[in-house]
Amino acid sequence: MKLSALNQIKGKVVDVKKGVTTAHVRIDLGHGIVVTSSITNEAVDLLNLSPGDEVTTLINESNIIIGK
Amino acid sequence: MKLSALNQIKGKVVDVKKGVTTAHVRIDLGHGIVVTSSITNEAVDLLNLSPGDEVTTLINESNIIIGK
Amino acid sequence: MKLSALNQIKGKVVDVKKGVTTAHVRIDLGHGIVVTSSITNEAVDLLNLSPGDEVTTLINESNIIIGK
Amino acid sequence: MKLSALNQIKGKVVDVKKGVTTAHVRIDLGHGIVVTSSITNEAVDLLNLSPGDEVTTLINESNIIIGK
Amino acid sequence: MKLSALNQIKGKVVDVKKGVTTAHVRIDLGHGIVVTSSITNEAVDLLNLSPGDEVTTLINESNIIIGK
Amino acid sequence: MKLSALNQIKGKVVDVKKGVTTAHVRIDLGHGIVVTSSITNEAVDLLNLSPGDEVTTLINESNIIIGK
Repeated sequence: MKLSALNQIKGKVVDVKKGVTTAHVRIDLGHGIVVTSSITNEAVDLLNLSPGDEVTTLINESNIIIGK
Repeated sequence: MKLSALNQIKGKVVDVKKGVTTAHVRIDLGHGIVVTSSITNEAVDLLNLSPGDEVTTLINESNIIIGK
Repeated sequence: MKLSALNQIKGKVVDVKKGVTTAHVRIDLGHGIVVTSSITNEAVDLLNLSPGDEVTTLINESNIIIGK
Repeated sequence: MKLSALNQIKGKVVDVKKGVTTAHVRIDLGHGIVVTSSITNEAVDLLNLSPGDEVTTLINESNIIIGK
Repeated sequence: MKLSALNQIKGKVVDVKKGVTTAHVRIDLGHGIVVTSSITNEAVDLLNLSPGDEVTTLINESNIIIGK
Repeated sequence: MKLSALNQIKGKVVDVKKGVTTAHVRIDLGHGIVVTSSITNEAVDLLNLSPGDEVTTLINESNIIIGK
């Protein structure tokens, strides 16, 4: 399935921290770039996410702010 | 000023395309990763964005979707 | 690829209107429910979207506001 | 009050799960479509949300991703 | 209708600029604070927005970034 | 660093409530306007946020919904 969110960057899960409802997943995009994604615990379970997993990060164009 | 959007990735502007109100800015994050940001024309003018500019992309944690 | 945006609803494209940079795509989810998605023109081209296409709408949990 | 978020779909609350700060509310839109909304606990209290409530889900156009 | 987006600030429309699909609406919140909202042209028409209108701005909690 | 999110409003932190992963920060913008921002606990720690802090709230144009 192709997605309209064109920003798609591959990475590897380095850490998954579950709250009561919300989880934080840290993803190493390589080259020293590590990002954090805030998703639901259900999503973590559905994707069966754990450290070492190869994943793709998807970001909508309107959600990238630019600083200069 | 530090920002609560912790995902901050440096890159270089490769293209700026203005619509009537909305502009698309393509940014090379290096390592073959190019993203597109959709911002207002006013923001392009305020930041005086043009190809070659060193910029930082900022992404809120709740705006990164994970695919596996 | 499974996605962490758990809200996924199937529908059919009824209309695609391109601006200079941003396009509006109207999608019939059935049962009288029609939604509008605002995406980039590049995404319309990449997905080769046109009326009649079977698609899936994806919505992040933090992007659904509730009214009562 | 009319809202600029044009995507408005009626549904019924089926479940409310509160975390320490963030709550997940599952809403049945009918026809087998159930979505999850992630809102603050304060919002749950303000709207006095509980299973069985008739509600409206509101989604901004830029927050609907399309997959094909 | 009460909304789960708890951030609701009243203001007055000062300017409406329509693109081909996307419109920018500038809103004076008083006290020298003017914000810009990017909505669809359809929303402008539906709400029949024009300068001088009393409106309410609604912002989801996850969409407010903090700088310090 | 200038940011493409043009909506920037100064305020003072009045309350910080941490969940297991997500924190709610209430910010007084003056003139009786108090908003709530939902950010990660890591962001609270990085910015070292506590009541009384002078901060700036940043809101992307596409994240302001208008009601009339």
